[in-house]
Amino acid sequence: MSATPEMLLRYATRLEAALTAELDQRAPLVAERLLAAMRYSLLAGGKRVRPALLLTCYAACGGRDPAQAMPAAMAIEAMHTYSLIHDDLPCMDDDDLRRGQPTCHKQFDEATAVLAGDALQSLAYEWLAASPLDSELCCQLLHSLTIAAGCRGMVGGQMLDMAAEQDGEGIDILAVERIHLHKTGALLRWSCEAGARIAGADDAQLAACSRYGKAVGLLFQIADDILDVTASSAALGKSAGKDAAQNKATYVSLLGLPRARELADEMHAMAVEACAPLQRAADDHAEPHVKQSAADLLQLADYIKEREK
Amino acid sequence: MSATPEMLLRYATRLEAALTAELDQRAPLVAERLLAAMRYSLLAGGKRVRPALLLTCYAACGGRDPAQAMPAAMAIEAMHTYSLIHDDLPCMDDDDLRRGQPTCHKQFDEATAVLAGDALQSLAYEWLAASPLDSELCCQLLHSLTIAAGCRGMVGGQMLDMAAEQDGEGIDILAVERIHLHKTGALLRWSCEAGARIAGADDAQLAACSRYGKAVGLLFQIADDILDVTASSAALGKSAGKDAAQNKATYVSLLGLPRARELADEMHAMAVEACAPLQRAADDHAEPHVKQSAADLLQLADYIKEREK
Repeated sequence: MSATPEMLLRYATRLEAALTAELDQRAPLVAERLLAAMRYSLLAGGKRVRPALLLTCYAACGGRDPAQAMPAAMAIEAMHTYSLIHDDLPCMDDDDLRRGQPTCHKQFDEATAVLAGDALQSLAYEWLAASPLDSELCCQLLHSLTIAAGCRGMVGGQMLDMAAEQDGEGIDILAVERIHLHKTGALLRWSCEAGARIAGADDAQLAACSRYGKAVGLLFQIADDILDVTASSAALGKSAGKDAAQNKATYVSLLGLPRARELADEMHAMAVEACAPLQRAADDHAEPHVKQSAADLLQLADYIKEREK
Repeated sequence: MSATPEMLLRYATRLEAALTAELDQRAPLVAERLLAAMRYSLLAGGKRVRPALLLTCYAACGGRDPAQAMPAAMAIEAMHTYSLIHDDLPCMDDDDLRRGQPTCHKQFDEATAVLAGDALQSLAYEWLAASPLDSELCCQLLHSLTIAAGCRGMVGGQMLDMAAEQDGEGIDILAVERIHLHKTGALLRWSCEAGARIAGADDAQLAACSRYGKAVGLLFQIADDILDVTASSAALGKSAGKDAAQNKATYVSLLGLPRARELADEMHAMAVEACAPLQRAADDHAEPHVKQSAADLLQLADYIKEREK
């Protein structure tokens, strides 16, 4: 696995400070065990890819004040974390390990894990609704996040995924793509689009971030499927080889490892191409942070792909 | 049990037509089994008390166009339904029956029930975010709903309730009140306040609806505890006597049935008193629908209390 880019670590540090401060504020108002479970999962040291995509797209579209975009970045991480807690439940993927630690229901109990997930979903919308953004933009972002997270997005994708596991052999590559565009892709794409919108992006910038988000969304999942067969559990921080053990239809099981790697290359190329208008606009731009952030988008695409090694 | 008031049935019919239309629209876009589970629970024939409170407070504060308030009414019912689905799960209250029908995880399966609940929570926020209200009001309502539904509200109350079951004997009446102000009360109160806000209520009207909402919230729970010991499972549509079987701290177990009934009377009187400013304003008002709605609030308080018989 390639090293984590320094910019990703920097964004993660800022995000975690903000998340910690927000949760600490809540301590007197929330049942202790519930808050402990929310904190345990939210601060379990993920790579914070979605917030980094959001904040980088924000800056690459000319956004100057990261504080404007931070509540949305916190919201998408809370939403992602809730989905992990519920996906890990015994009745779903039944996972004991996540990021090298016991999953939420193992560390606490199932009921607490269900409620911690439920509370983190609410908290995602709360952070966004309480953000300092203009009300019209805020409503627009809230609405698009409900679509990305709900039955037409992430939750719908998880349902398709479970149905596919039962269907077994009958799944083709288009069905796998449909699952992942919903299950993983919707939040990744929302992150990129939200960053652009908060920056006040023009139509061309917004379209570029949206295409980039779609490409890195699929790239992320293909890399994940490849990792499942090539990496060890220790390196992954979760059970490796699980897809094959469950006879799950993945990019690798359907296409084989060489073709899956090619497809990852193609998605990476799509992401790079999608960035081109942002790069060109950045080159015309005097401000160094815009140029740097446009370059960071390429680095993030590299990172998401290079995880396969 | 007293008969359901005609105005409650009328609101329920309109709400269910709107919910059905909204879910039907989604059919091509959502995994079939997920939508079926959402529909099963959302259209399982509840009394629709929260939407009725919202729509009645809206009209009693002078609101003239129920279409303005309907998305918020749908939102609160979706939120309430998601909480029932998750509360019924085996790891939570482990209930097999709800409103006389198998609970969602019995009719479908646990994973589908978790996801249907998750999707209904998103859908609640989606309906509110897509409402035709002014953006600033919409953000305000979304934010207050996240507080009412999340770790500082309903989910927090459910967590306190579970902790209390484990503590057993150590729970006093203040702890029980704290649980219910969060678990049941927060959404009921939000319904009343949201109706007022959507109507453009002045401060006095908003305060009246808020006090009324708090009183009917507690009344609702006391009546529920009384019903658990006085009604049959068939009349309840869910397992009766469950609180006692689980040795749960309730208004009845802590205060005895006679004092619990007195407390219900007191809460009912508080609700009636809270309505007084709305009644007086309605009396000064030429419009018959405002007068009628102020009277309906009293009828709703009667209904919520009389359920105990």
